[in-house]
Amino acid sequence: MRVALLGAGRIAEVHARGIRSAGAELAGVYDLRREAAEAAAGRFGGEVYADVEAALVDPRVEAVAIATPTDTHVDYLVRAVAAGKHVFCEKPIDLSVARALECRDRIGDAADRVQIGFNRRFDRTFARLRERLGEGAIGRIENLTIISRDPAPAPISYLASSGGILKDMTIHDFDMARLILGEEPVEVFATGSVLVDPAIGEAGDHDSISVVMRTASGVQCQILNTRRCAFGYDQRIEVFGEKGSLRAENPLVDELRVNLADGTDMRSRLSDFFLDRYIDAFAAQWVSFFANLWAGRPPAVTFRDGLRALELAEAGNRSIAERRVIEVPAH
Amino acid sequence: MRVALLGAGRIAEVHARGIRSAGAELAGVYDLRREAAEAAAGRFGGEVYADVEAALVDPRVEAVAIATPTDTHVDYLVRAVAAGKHVFCEKPIDLSVARALECRDRIGDAADRVQIGFNRRFDRTFARLRERLGEGAIGRIENLTIISRDPAPAPISYLASSGGILKDMTIHDFDMARLILGEEPVEVFATGSVLVDPAIGEAGDHDSISVVMRTASGVQCQILNTRRCAFGYDQRIEVFGEKGSLRAENPLVDELRVNLADGTDMRSRLSDFFLDRYIDAFAAQWVSFFANLWAGRPPAVTFRDGLRALELAEAGNRSIAERRVIEVPAH
Amino acid sequence: MRVALLGAGRIAEVHARGIRSAGAELAGVYDLRREAAEAAAGRFGGEVYADVEAALVDPRVEAVAIATPTDTHVDYLVRAVAAGKHVFCEKPIDLSVARALECRDRIGDAADRVQIGFNRRFDRTFARLRERLGEGAIGRIENLTIISRDPAPAPISYLASSGGILKDMTIHDFDMARLILGEEPVEVFATGSVLVDPAIGEAGDHDSISVVMRTASGVQCQILNTRRCAFGYDQRIEVFGEKGSLRAENPLVDELRVNLADGTDMRSRLSDFFLDRYIDAFAAQWVSFFANLWAGRPPAVTFRDGLRALELAEAGNRSIAERRVIEVPAH
Amino acid sequence: MRVALLGAGRIAEVHARGIRSAGAELAGVYDLRREAAEAAAGRFGGEVYADVEAALVDPRVEAVAIATPTDTHVDYLVRAVAAGKHVFCEKPIDLSVARALECRDRIGDAADRVQIGFNRRFDRTFARLRERLGEGAIGRIENLTIISRDPAPAPISYLASSGGILKDMTIHDFDMARLILGEEPVEVFATGSVLVDPAIGEAGDHDSISVVMRTASGVQCQILNTRRCAFGYDQRIEVFGEKGSLRAENPLVDELRVNLADGTDMRSRLSDFFLDRYIDAFAAQWVSFFANLWAGRPPAVTFRDGLRALELAEAGNRSIAERRVIEVPAH
Repeated sequence: MRVALLGAGRIAEVHARGIRSAGAELAGVYDLRREAAEAAAGRFGGEVYADVEAALVDPRVEAVAIATPTDTHVDYLVRAVAAGKHVFCEKPIDLSVARALECRDRIGDAADRVQIGFNRRFDRTFARLRERLGEGAIGRIENLTIISRDPAPAPISYLASSGGILKDMTIHDFDMARLILGEEPVEVFATGSVLVDPAIGEAGDHDSISVVMRTASGVQCQILNTRRCAFGYDQRIEVFGEKGSLRAENPLVDELRVNLADGTDMRSRLSDFFLDRYIDAFAAQWVSFFANLWAGRPPAVTFRDGLRALELAEAGNRSIAERRVIEVPAH
Repeated sequence: MRVALLGAGRIAEVHARGIRSAGAELAGVYDLRREAAEAAAGRFGGEVYADVEAALVDPRVEAVAIATPTDTHVDYLVRAVAAGKHVFCEKPIDLSVARALECRDRIGDAADRVQIGFNRRFDRTFARLRERLGEGAIGRIENLTIISRDPAPAPISYLASSGGILKDMTIHDFDMARLILGEEPVEVFATGSVLVDPAIGEAGDHDSISVVMRTASGVQCQILNTRRCAFGYDQRIEVFGEKGSLRAENPLVDELRVNLADGTDMRSRLSDFFLDRYIDAFAAQWVSFFANLWAGRPPAVTFRDGLRALELAEAGNRSIAERRVIEVPAH
Repeated sequence: MRVALLGAGRIAEVHARGIRSAGAELAGVYDLRREAAEAAAGRFGGEVYADVEAALVDPRVEAVAIATPTDTHVDYLVRAVAAGKHVFCEKPIDLSVARALECRDRIGDAADRVQIGFNRRFDRTFARLRERLGEGAIGRIENLTIISRDPAPAPISYLASSGGILKDMTIHDFDMARLILGEEPVEVFATGSVLVDPAIGEAGDHDSISVVMRTASGVQCQILNTRRCAFGYDQRIEVFGEKGSLRAENPLVDELRVNLADGTDMRSRLSDFFLDRYIDAFAAQWVSFFANLWAGRPPAVTFRDGLRALELAEAGNRSIAERRVIEVPAH
Repeated sequence: MRVALLGAGRIAEVHARGIRSAGAELAGVYDLRREAAEAAAGRFGGEVYADVEAALVDPRVEAVAIATPTDTHVDYLVRAVAAGKHVFCEKPIDLSVARALECRDRIGDAADRVQIGFNRRFDRTFARLRERLGEGAIGRIENLTIISRDPAPAPISYLASSGGILKDMTIHDFDMARLILGEEPVEVFATGSVLVDPAIGEAGDHDSISVVMRTASGVQCQILNTRRCAFGYDQRIEVFGEKGSLRAENPLVDELRVNLADGTDMRSRLSDFFLDRYIDAFAAQWVSFFANLWAGRPPAVTFRDGLRALELAEAGNRSIAERRVIEVPAH
């Protein structure tokens, strides 16, 4: 199995490792900055493509991994699908629901050959949580709380083109919420504040977010996001059901426990970088990608998943603006 | 120090114990059901009052504890204040903000002699959390989450006259939110579902609640309530600030840790009764009551606190009905 | 039920509270220092006895609590038994096995009316651990580890007359070991070091102890003691069995959990005073004392228990001296 | 850097992975069972050596990894050193101290080019514990407790030739004890029981071990071993010092926390296989091996370390037989 990698930045490198550790090979790498593509090909193998077309016409290539800037996703995705390739596309599909819908219309049924890069679905603890849910451990879900906090805000220059916190950061949580709830949220309420950095507010964005969603059956879901967390990368999920609760807690970097003269009982610290936290999940999503591809099954995270998360994010933005519940009919 | 106890039900008995363990005495007990008053006086000392008036004219009585049904609170409170007594009044003041405001107007400055029974303020862990906040451990607060779940719903007959979940149950959390935030919430959003028992919905109430509040400075606060929790009395608070977080976790009934053949690492269980959970807090509020009284200081929980929690609850009810943010100006 | 209290020091006061909270009354108090007895009687009720005899001839007295210095225990115990009283005697019975055996011979069957003050048996978590053991949760016991560390050494003056660390401190652990093992240790190995304070070594004692015991069936038990623990009063028990393990962990003073900028996940601190740690156990042993007395059952902690713990301590001292296993036949 | 791998069994395969993930290559593999060597070479690269000599004369080989049965270690080690290679040798060096001493005499100063496979030294949490010790976090060490329990006993056929539990299993703990104490244990006491399987006793071995050691300065160390642990692979270290304690707790397989109707607060389960538990440590020891080799430093675990652990194990066996403390002078 050979994969063409579009993009050679940090996240593309993570995918290169994931592709190889899943037992596949890189056919080649394309990046607008040729020297970045050369460096990546040097480290992970494969040739250097002069342009995207070169990757798409390479007959050895069975799958294309899109890890370029968000505004190129739809174009490359449509072309890769047209070239008959299987596609892995980093989240988000696009910053605009309208454009994502248009993309869906253009690729039609081939949407079933597209996996969106919601890596968190593949986290060991989140996966185990879902397994226990599926076994009925806590019965029917009544409430879901997702806490997701970054250690520190990205540079303002990045944030300014990120589409806003809901599409850039909360989108992962919208996806996890849908996955865990097993039912579409149909109402969204959101509120945002600027508490971390006034520059974020000046750029028209928020850095601290609360979301409340409801499904048709009345199950409620909270999402809490902040762009800064002093103690590391805080990523927790708590599902409350009629028979109990399941909580995914933060992994700590080791199992050391310390008691000193002030008497406090200290555990170790959280990881403070998303790649440390989710490195296994990034790898596992490629194992899943290939396993489903080989078995002729649709991917574990579909184009529709990517689209729906985007719709919820857009509804959240409207809710912040209008200070009321926004309905997001399931479709 | 002698206290007249109005009411002889379960919560009145808790106050009788609290009063005595704080070193004061019961002057007497009144209850509509005379035999209940006799039983209480038999156990905790003091005479049996034929009616409320008898308690209020008893010259030995310095303070009056009101633990009768909610719809009598305002009447007894006004009369006790008029009789020159210090007053402890169970929460809520009343089910109606209008009546509570009217009460405030009638008692005037004497509101400073009235303590409202928000016992949770006196919980050891919550108190320690506030102490650490006050020391600046986590800097400025950015987010507050309060989870408060009852083990099982009260009988429908009780719930029907409770004023609804926001005034009956969430009111404690509104109070804790105000206390911890150190700033008035000025916007309330709430949503409610019926997930536990359809009879609760038929009675016009909800059993599962999400609240999002904001202060003027943009600090956000979530409250999650449910009327049923399979694993016990779930009462947690998490404060997230610029420099870290403070979490009040559930106490467990003992410190046993068990590992069995399935390998799971089990701690002990939660308490499943609010009196087990908060029994020390119920006692501590009386220690505080007498300490402030003797020192000539206003009580730790004021009439205004009781009123403000009620206003937030009423705003929450409006928000559920109108599906939008309700403003609750600080005053 | 009325109890005569011999002794009016700190531990006697704890017993006075325990007796009263168990629903019994103090008939009177004796102490060599009359003013101490007067103070205690003033606080907890009862008369002041001029001497021990006065307490023993008081016809209202049904039980005698001995909380005087260790070297008086045997004398008072023999006399109280002879006067037909039920007896509670603080640990240890005596510092000499020979004297304790002589005491046993003198009181004969009345040993069944004597409870020894091994309060830890009544600790909530230890009791729950034994309950789970009794239910067969971990099957047959294979190993028991007891860690018991004091926050700080008592004054040298006290230690010098304490009988040595094994009889003064480890004796509690010898008792807990016997209780939990459900089988007599028949071999003792011990080793001691002076690591905390050279003055302890100069007084002929050790401050750091390791004990290994074995029962006839080969079950092993470790006891670790130190006279100083920087982080508080460290009292843990771990039982390992064929089907799992049970651990009694240290209670913390509250349930606050803190994450700060270094990322560490901190729980609260241990209590640092044995009375804080075991105050409920001290009370519970009196509830047990009266319950068994009223039911005509022998006490939960017998004279034989006190004697056997002393024998193990003495064997431990021989083992330290002879650097080998000492046999302690069950009898 | 090229390594010749002697042995192609399970542990040899682990080393093959470690060697490659550390960036080195396999030059070839030797195993008595040629088809095993072929399979390993097929998977990890390199040629198949017809015999050990072929590996030792291969000029490309800079280091030799010995992962053959214990009774071949000394022979191969001496020959590999004579051939000028750097050597990694699985633990134990040999089952006999006498033979290990003889080996040392034969290799002389080249012992500095030999690393012994005490993989646990490289465990993330144990390494962090030592780092904190080195920083003085808990001051001077006063006590060390090592608990090490296997999920289930190896087959009797294996155990019969293992050299006994002290040389086969405890030897890791003797090594960790020396490493952490930073001072040689000079006295050993051990006791053993047969509690898991009578067949182990019939083979002349024990399955449950307690060890107490002391250093010259009086620091005490306990080691607890059992061949069976119902709840998984239980590997803990607790260091108690004058200023606090450091504990390496068991890692759990994920961070899920579950509360169900019985109220218990459950964490996830322990790993139940030593390769799952220590896989990162197995890899890290190879990173260390190459780093020291390239820097011209002696290895992190020396021949002397392997020898000393063996001496402690042999002293433990004598202590079990003679039921007394055995002195093991540092040299």
